[in-house]
Amino acid sequence: MKHTINVVGMGPGAEEMMSFQAIKALEDSDVIIGYSVYLELLGDRFSDKEFLSTPMRKEAERCRMCFEEALKGKKVSMVCSGDAGVYGMASLMYEIGKEYEECEITIVPGITAANSGAAYLGAPLNHDYCVISLSDLLTPWDKIEKRLKAAAEGDFCIAIYNPSSHKRADYLKKACEILLEQIEETRICGYVANIGREGTVCITCTLKELKEKQVDMFTTVFIGNSNTELINGKLVAKRGYHL
Amino acid sequence: MKHTINVVGMGPGAEEMMSFQAIKALEDSDVIIGYSVYLELLGDRFSDKEFLSTPMRKEAERCRMCFEEALKGKKVSMVCSGDAGVYGMASLMYEIGKEYEECEITIVPGITAANSGAAYLGAPLNHDYCVISLSDLLTPWDKIEKRLKAAAEGDFCIAIYNPSSHKRADYLKKACEILLEQIEETRICGYVANIGREGTVCITCTLKELKEKQVDMFTTVFIGNSNTELINGKLVAKRGYHL
Ligand SMILES: C[S@@+](CC[C@H](N)C(=O)[O-])C[C@H]1O[C@@H](n2cnc3c(N)ncnc32)[C@H](O)[C@@H]1O
Ligand SMILES: C[S@@+](CC[C@H](N)C(=O)[O-])C[C@H]1O[C@@H](n2cnc3c(N)ncnc32)[C@H](O)[C@@H]1O
Repeated sequence: MKHTINVVGMGPGAEEMMSFQAIKALEDSDVIIGYSVYLELLGDRFSDKEFLSTPMRKEAERCRMCFEEALKGKKVSMVCSGDAGVYGMASLMYEIGKEYEECEITIVPGITAANSGAAYLGAPLNHDYCVISLSDLLTPWDKIEKRLKAAAEGDFCIAIYNPSSHKRADYLKKACEILLEQIEETRICGYVANIGREGTVCITCTLKELKEKQVDMFTTVFIGNSNTELINGKLVAKRGYHL
Repeated sequence: MKHTINVVGMGPGAEEMMSFQAIKALEDSDVIIGYSVYLELLGDRFSDKEFLSTPMRKEAERCRMCFEEALKGKKVSMVCSGDAGVYGMASLMYEIGKEYEECEITIVPGITAANSGAAYLGAPLNHDYCVISLSDLLTPWDKIEKRLKAAAEGDFCIAIYNPSSHKRADYLKKACEILLEQIEETRICGYVANIGREGTVCITCTLKELKEKQVDMFTTVFIGNSNTELINGKLVAKRGYHL
């Protein structure tokens, strides 16, 4: 019998936005492993569990910890915010899992920030959409630039993750400049910070205005497509129904 | 006081994949309105509710029904599969909502098929990704074609919704032919039918093989990016960590 490790997406933060399946996977675990910020979001329901963590950037070590704990005979869940398969630990778990034939991975999906954030803004992704991260820690910037251009070229709705960090304070501005080569300044945009957590902030603006906004790393940014309209303050990507 | 209407994403099907918030919104409702296939997926938990529906294609009528029922003083939820803001009723509700100033809309997010399907296949969307529908009911085919080309150009991971229907049996083939203009035949792909429902089927194949597959409308299709690998039978879009 193989040891099964759950890789669990907890949604944006609030427990009420987790799926039953995710709650159950965590409840059935002996150990919950994750980045400390996510572990702190987990409620009292899990107070009897062993919590293990590694610092930020120590992702490979965190994954290896899952397999090592499982080999000790413990039931292990790795927890990620949102969905574990969206800039989360799912792929790295499979990569490192090559070294641990006795272990098996189950992914428990969660609501990713693009979709939970969209719900606050209205319906900004209600047509074909792209999800792009501005983090160049693992992806060369020219590749990110190419994807922004392709997204604009294809007239997609766009959700942007990792729009900013201490070292990359001007990345959202750079991204907007690239988009503005193809998209008009008045295009409807928006962003949501702290989705499903304390202090949610939800803003709509034009692409030109977005270029000047300073957002933090707990923010997801949305760019409308050419068919996006502001209806009663909500961002709505219209699907083209005849009314 | 305005009447609040919930537009609820129920996830792929199984109740255990709904969020608590979604369950609660439906439990608090007097009437649940939706396409009949989705209403049938709802369990006994909701058997005391009034269920209302309209036939497929009668989406505008279904939305109007929500507002009319709310004006009667009932608590109303509109239910959609997956996330209501991904090819769901969210945007149409806002559009039709213009006529009903006394009503207010709350979107309750759900796990969309791209993310729930990805969990079965491994981690096929674990980098920048596009979500594209092949349905040309509301979108001209040349726009769909343009988006497929842009997605390939940007080297995105791709999730394809509505890959087929009775009238559009060869659309997935057409889409693969467009992608093959830029992507090699051996690119790793996959698809999942009936996610979170009876009879789930999960297949991996190359892009060349995908072109010849006959899938149905309850299927979501995944195309890897250039960094996608098959690891122990799972589709893994690698993020570029140094191991
Ligand atoms: C490393 S990624 C993790 C994404 C996560 N796995 C998901 O599916 O949502 C971190 C980025 O996700 C977005 N994000 C995650 N949780 C968020 C939240 N609660 N509020 C706003 N943005 C969030 C932000 O753009 C953030 O920079
Ligand atoms: C009109 S769209 C609705 C999408 C839905 N709102 C969502 O967020 O998943 C219908 C398409 O979604 C995908 N889909 C929805 N539910 C699915 C399921 N349970 N299994 C596989 N594909 C599904 C299929 O591609 C299908 O053709």
